Amino acid sequence: MFDQIFFTQVQFPTPVTPVEVERQMSRNAQNLQEKENGTQEELPANMRNADYFIFGKMDTFSRPPVTDFALENLFYMEAFSIFTCPKGFFTNRKDYQSFLIIYTYEGNGGLEYMGKSYSLGPGDGFFIDCRVPHLYRTVGDVWKHGVFHLNGPLVPALFSRYMENGSVSFYQPFTGNYQKKLEELLSIYGSVQPCRDWLASDCISSILTDLLRNASEEKETDSPVPENLRYLIAYMEKHFTQALTLDFLSRFSGISKYYLSREFKKYTGYSPNDYLISLRVEHAKFLLRSTTLPANKIALTAGFHDINNFTNLFRKKTAMTPGGYRKSC
Amino acid sequence: MFDQIFFTQVQFPTPVTPVEVERQMSRNAQNLQEKENGTQEELPANMRNADYFIFGKMDTFSRPPVTDFALENLFYMEAFSIFTCPKGFFTNRKDYQSFLIIYTYEGNGGLEYMGKSYSLGPGDGFFIDCRVPHLYRTVGDVWKHGVFHLNGPLVPALFSRYMENGSVSFYQPFTGNYQKKLEELLSIYGSVQPCRDWLASDCISSILTDLLRNASEEKETDSPVPENLRYLIAYMEKHFTQALTLDFLSRFSGISKYYLSREFKKYTGYSPNDYLISLRVEHAKFLLRSTTLPANKIALTAGFHDINNFTNLFRKKTAMTPGGYRKSC
Repeated sequence: MFDQIFFTQVQFPTPVTPVEVERQMSRNAQNLQEKENGTQEELPANMRNADYFIFGKMDTFSRPPVTDFALENLFYMEAFSIFTCPKGFFTNRKDYQSFLIIYTYEGNGGLEYMGKSYSLGPGDGFFIDCRVPHLYRTVGDVWKHGVFHLNGPLVPALFSRYMENGSVSFYQPFTGNYQKKLEELLSIYGSVQPCRDWLASDCISSILTDLLRNASEEKETDSPVPENLRYLIAYMEKHFTQALTLDFLSRFSGISKYYLSREFKKYTGYSPNDYLISLRVEHAKFLLRSTTLPANKIALTAGFHDINNFTNLFRKKTAMTPGGYRKSC
Repeated sequence: MFDQIFFTQVQFPTPVTPVEVERQMSRNAQNLQEKENGTQEELPANMRNADYFIFGKMDTFSRPPVTDFALENLFYMEAFSIFTCPKGFFTNRKDYQSFLIIYTYEGNGGLEYMGKSYSLGPGDGFFIDCRVPHLYRTVGDVWKHGVFHLNGPLVPALFSRYMENGSVSFYQPFTGNYQKKLEELLSIYGSVQPCRDWLASDCISSILTDLLRNASEEKETDSPVPENLRYLIAYMEKHFTQALTLDFLSRFSGISKYYLSREFKKYTGYSPNDYLISLRVEHAKFLLRSTTLPANKIALTAGFHDINNFTNLFRKKTAMTPGGYRKSC
């Protein structure tokens, strides 16, 4: 792993004997005290609201500068290091404007995050928002883990979808997409090439989307969309131009009308009828902007059997008339 | 290809005999006339500034509705259709707020774009901004091509990087990344799953980044970064903490000082010294936000041998003092 990737090694003094550990612990306590007294005001943001006990070995990757455009628009890596840390190592932090993926290579670690505890063995990782209080530490003799700080304007929204699963941890084998894409990312940053920031962003997009996909599949497994409902939705997405009454949908899916309305809303956020209307309006928008067909013909083609009904529903969904939409495209 | 993907077929009346072609041509001329007379004001945007002569077969994919969040933040597909169009088919358009990838499956097509002509056979495609005038058409008997309209807030910036190559066309075999990712995209849109918009956006990011990578590699081949300069830049990115004078860099690379300064600027946009400073400031920023090291120690670690010099250069690059940056993180 990490062949051809250049790291700079930093060795933190490791307290070996019980006396040294004791001394380090009391130094840490003193730091805490100074922090409480406000005598550590000059600390960097990720230290100001944090306690650390970092020792062991750190292999750091030097990322070249990224453009301002990338900072404002794309996904980008802030830092990547591999920590090999004996028992006693921990980070306890909050209010740090960064997102973090930690992935375990050897040994064991632990995470406390939003009232949950996670145990991490080889192949286990987590993805967290560092603004939220978090504590991670070595469990057992040693914990070798990759620390990947990343950011970008879309990360908060993606993270909140990731969190819907209720868990922030994930498992992937070393041969999985995470390690593959991470190494690809480091070699993109490590080589001189134009469009480096775009390639890096796409790599990070792939890593995060993959985490999101796995998390939502896990959620699916816990509470999957029922097979008949899934089939019904797919049917509606293909046949929305036909008249599909609730009676029909109920008979088609074998779900009672009352239960169907409730379940449909639960899994899609729409009522069955509202979803049909959305599909039809979407298709009408496509026809309005890409053909010369008159509005009444489009209404029919999209599954609206009454032009006034079409205009009203179109306006309700888009806050525009069909003609207004066509002109505004 | 396109197994498991559901398309709706539309057949445009095909003018077969010379008389029918003639009639269609004059209808088209009449449309043009009406457009000039302003009697076609109600046309959709992509028709208003366009001439069309569309006939043949169109297989259209129905994309389900995408969220407002996706429209405002992500990459998204607007429409995808496969056109199978005999000789005579053309689209001549401008001022259409959309980006377009066309890819040839069978036969031949042609494109006129920004003063250049492109010939397209099987496997050839192009990526264009539809706001700019463009004309594409069947060349020969028939042209079977995929028409993929896409958009998103980042597309204009990505497209302008793509254009730096000077050419908008690309070649990929049917077994290449484009077709693979396109089918993945259609099956994401075609299946009922949470996070559909995120998965779709990542897929499009991958398609566009791939086009960008190939375009810049082509540009590279035309005018590659000289081997010794590439090696020098990679060396600087790893050893920037050391004192690297222009004399040293010149001797290291075997390029005269004058020529080195000029070539370095040409390929990186920086002078050698400015690039070194950027690398050092970037590393100092990393240490400021992720360690408790005092600023003078960080200056030394990052390769600045004078604290005043460090503060000045840091301020010049970031418009902040090192301490101010640390607090602001």
